[in-house]
Amino acid sequence: MRLRLTPREDSFYDLFAQSANNIVTASRLLVEIISDGSDRDALAEKMRACEHAGDEHTHAIMKRLNESFITPFDREDIYRLASNLDDVTDFMEAAADLIVLYQIEHLPKEVVLQVEVLERAAELTADAMPRLRSMQHLNEYWIEINRLENQADQVYRRLLAKLFSGEFDTLTVMKMREVIEQLEFAADAFEHVANTIESIAVKES
Amino acid sequence: MRLRLTPREDSFYDLFAQSANNIVTASRLLVEIISDGSDRDALAEKMRACEHAGDEHTHAIMKRLNESFITPFDREDIYRLASNLDDVTDFMEAAADLIVLYQIEHLPKEVVLQVEVLERAAELTADAMPRLRSMQHLNEYWIEINRLENQADQVYRRLLAKLFSGEFDTLTVMKMREVIEQLEFAADAFEHVANTIESIAVKES
Amino acid sequence: MRLRLTPREDSFYDLFAQSANNIVTASRLLVEIISDGSDRDALAEKMRACEHAGDEHTHAIMKRLNESFITPFDREDIYRLASNLDDVTDFMEAAADLIVLYQIEHLPKEVVLQVEVLERAAELTADAMPRLRSMQHLNEYWIEINRLENQADQVYRRLLAKLFSGEFDTLTVMKMREVIEQLEFAADAFEHVANTIESIAVKES
Repeated sequence: MRLRLTPREDSFYDLFAQSANNIVTASRLLVEIISDGSDRDALAEKMRACEHAGDEHTHAIMKRLNESFITPFDREDIYRLASNLDDVTDFMEAAADLIVLYQIEHLPKEVVLQVEVLERAAELTADAMPRLRSMQHLNEYWIEINRLENQADQVYRRLLAKLFSGEFDTLTVMKMREVIEQLEFAADAFEHVANTIESIAVKES
Repeated sequence: MRLRLTPREDSFYDLFAQSANNIVTASRLLVEIISDGSDRDALAEKMRACEHAGDEHTHAIMKRLNESFITPFDREDIYRLASNLDDVTDFMEAAADLIVLYQIEHLPKEVVLQVEVLERAAELTADAMPRLRSMQHLNEYWIEINRLENQADQVYRRLLAKLFSGEFDTLTVMKMREVIEQLEFAADAFEHVANTIESIAVKES
Repeated sequence: MRLRLTPREDSFYDLFAQSANNIVTASRLLVEIISDGSDRDALAEKMRACEHAGDEHTHAIMKRLNESFITPFDREDIYRLASNLDDVTDFMEAAADLIVLYQIEHLPKEVVLQVEVLERAAELTADAMPRLRSMQHLNEYWIEINRLENQADQVYRRLLAKLFSGEFDTLTVMKMREVIEQLEFAADAFEHVANTIESIAVKES
């Protein structure tokens, strides 16, 4: 039986939940940014705000770690989970920034599939955070994140094949490749979050 | 003196050995895939089977971790080693999939050198697995993997220089770059496996 | 109050300091290599020597780890910090090697900004090493490395946008992209060093 947590420990869960909710917001901004006719400059600005919010959640977790005598799980794992969540936002912000920087007018429609996978992974991650308290019922989360990551790989590789089909001019191919690579890194980063949570659960088992 | 292991603990070593043997199979499929006149679709299908087998070994290790009270070394390290081995197969499978997807007819002959390094690293890794039991005689394994990784870097960089020499058309360059990058990631992933084993040995020392 | 360290433990700090000083040397070689009119072959040769020196520092740390009964912080963290420092030198050496291999005559002037960030990060890292002894006053180091890494991201993305602007021919774009990517990896690697030090400090707190 686990001991009841003190309010102080509890706050780690709240901070992780906030960090994950911030990722959901970022993923929805991505959906908007890749929609035709969206105000990309304004959305990229919101995305930057999201990334700053992510940094602040991460720093709040680190500060709390330094102040806490007791932590709900290993300090090192708290540290790693916070970093992994931060990485997701960073890759999403990078993708948004590059779309604006390169002034890419039309993205291939398969990018929508990439971003939808990210949105779904963000929602699953946010849903899983409250379950860190009990470390129960996380199995379905890992399985689904792994399935989504495989799906993201397939979409990404097929998008690359399309980019290299001869349909686009060289500079467009290069620009789009950078963008979809950041989106692929974001999908990988969700898997790293899930792996960290799985490794915490393994230790607590 | 180390205590005698229980059969239960022993099974971790068996699972790691299976995972490493699976990587040897994958590396040999790569050798075949890049050979002229091979049936690439059939071989890529076998590679996908290999990747699924790899996933199953990884999940078997995770499941065993959750069920085991005593483990031969830190849970976290077992977790990391399983993940590192899984990464190797994933990169090899990605390379094979991209070769088929892009319908690359002729690969530069230096790709053979890249793949031979991977095959050698796979064999060394599989050979090292039984020595995890005693943690003895692993030194030569690390040194050789590091040497192979340096060699892989040299081959990779010289291949890039050849791709960018003006000899190939732009789309071909881009496609081949993606393929050889996955092969380079696989070489790096072997080094991560060796690093994890080295860090386990350091802790046990 | 921390116990006084034995001379044996002290030597870890000396080895980390040497490894970081070697990175400062490597960063200054990079500054020279990208300067117009420099003898690149000779400088790349010196860079290779730097990378070998880095490998030797890393191996000395690993050897010491294996021989030491008591270590100033967790074995695993010493291992990770040594690896992270090694990565920085590896990426810098890769960038230098590619500049020579591709025979790139003129690099865009913004590459100077990238390399200056690396030189500053190297100096900060070397300055921070003696503070590992007390784990005091490391805050400003993390904050500044994070700021530099954000700056490096901005410079890198703007450099990519410039490469893709149509100003350069395709092969030149591809070659320069590989070089600036290695420099960006080096900037990321400095952040990994800082993250590892932060996570050690978190544990010791």
